[in-house]
Amino acid sequence: MKDVITIACGQFQPVFGDTTANLLKVKDFVEQAAANLIIFPELCASGYEFKGHRELQALALAPDSSEIRCLKEIARDFRTHIVLGLPERNSGKVYNSSILIEPSGKTTIYRKIHLFDREKRLFEPGNAEPSVVRTEIGRLGMMICFDWIFPEVVRILALKGAQIICHPANLVLQFCQRAMFARSVENGVFTATCNRVGAESRAGRTLNFTGASQILSNRGATLAQASDEKEEVIKAEIRPAEADNKMITTLNDVIGDRRIDYYKSLIV
Amino acid sequence: MKDVITIACGQFQPVFGDTTANLLKVKDFVEQAAANLIIFPELCASGYEFKGHRELQALALAPDSSEIRCLKEIARDFRTHIVLGLPERNSGKVYNSSILIEPSGKTTIYRKIHLFDREKRLFEPGNAEPSVVRTEIGRLGMMICFDWIFPEVVRILALKGAQIICHPANLVLQFCQRAMFARSVENGVFTATCNRVGAESRAGRTLNFTGASQILSNRGATLAQASDEKEEVIKAEIRPAEADNKMITTLNDVIGDRRIDYYKSLIV
Repeated sequence: MKDVITIACGQFQPVFGDTTANLLKVKDFVEQAAANLIIFPELCASGYEFKGHRELQALALAPDSSEIRCLKEIARDFRTHIVLGLPERNSGKVYNSSILIEPSGKTTIYRKIHLFDREKRLFEPGNAEPSVVRTEIGRLGMMICFDWIFPEVVRILALKGAQIICHPANLVLQFCQRAMFARSVENGVFTATCNRVGAESRAGRTLNFTGASQILSNRGATLAQASDEKEEVIKAEIRPAEADNKMITTLNDVIGDRRIDYYKSLIV
Repeated sequence: MKDVITIACGQFQPVFGDTTANLLKVKDFVEQAAANLIIFPELCASGYEFKGHRELQALALAPDSSEIRCLKEIARDFRTHIVLGLPERNSGKVYNSSILIEPSGKTTIYRKIHLFDREKRLFEPGNAEPSVVRTEIGRLGMMICFDWIFPEVVRILALKGAQIICHPANLVLQFCQRAMFARSVENGVFTATCNRVGAESRAGRTLNFTGASQILSNRGATLAQASDEKEEVIKAEIRPAEADNKMITTLNDVIGDRRIDYYKSLIV
């Protein structure tokens, strides 16, 4: 396990429907970042605003697709861990998913459990509790965009030992960027939110995405911050093991101090 | 039930050990605020830095004490709801508590369930799940200072129908003030954090409190914000019923969209 690693966010504007162009951008940014871990936006393989199910099905990727194989090669060639959002086709259903690709070629999928707005009409919601992946650079958790507003998600990942939250996003407001401070501090974890930039005018409306991707420390410090509008890579050096120290005073463990006997209402 | 109410925070510097002076300040600020609900800081009846158990026992107030009777009179005379922090003596134990006093004289106690730092050596921790009080001005929930860092607290209060979170505090950093945005937004509730100001040099150390009391809307907007250092009353007009609307898009209910089937790890 490495002591110090570099993590990055590759903030860009996907070209709707052009998976090849988007994966080339991913490769470009992986090379430019030269990081141990790089996070890309939600649905950045495809773009966001699908006109309907047919278009979504056409652009969805299966785990054994040539595109995923291509991403595995990139992760291997650059010895990096890649987290990236894609429409994932599986048994005829399409999920709003995030894939973690390790240099070894091992992949892990997380399927967004809290769908936002029109996504509810397009995607199958995720069907599993968020889980944590042990890698050679630390224990990683994934969530996607709107999952941020449910404190349960990062909490569950932290309880399962996550050190770094990998958070692909397509944010149209900047509420999330403001709130992630709380997620880092309340759980003592590193968070890396990678948002997209640019506008998408499709399906009769225009969405403007708000950039401002950010990497926060386990104590809530802003380690790196992208602009609102530019495509760019941001990076930070971190020690993932620092997230294992949950003591915020000599007497307070921000996880261990939880009073679960008095939290019963949370899941009824 | 009133449609529109005024809520206030009475930010001040308690005089350590002088309960009478502190309650006179409370009365003063109640009169000045002319609000339907006013929140005061944590432990503002006594001050914060107790040298030890003997001093704490001496300054702790019983629910039937003359001081609480005096507060009931103030609430009745000014037809207001008061929330205020005090060391509460009960069956020989002392809790870091918050009391809600309604104009009718009805009182409700909340005992802090997450104690901060040295408080663990002084106070008995609260021993009940946070609950919600139905009043003529809306459904109120209470939490105290460090409870903020546990998203479970406001979440439980919101699940139980709270519209307004009354939050007495003695904050030495400004992490909380920054994070309360998330608490409001993720639960769709109004929050009123009343912090104290000034320094206390006792028990061999000096604590500096950070003021910046704030009232946030159910959508995270800052409705009122106090200075870092001054004693002052801040106020906002709100419609408590707005907190019953949890829809943040036409398809997203920030409470109803919770996926509790996938939250089991929260309480194991």
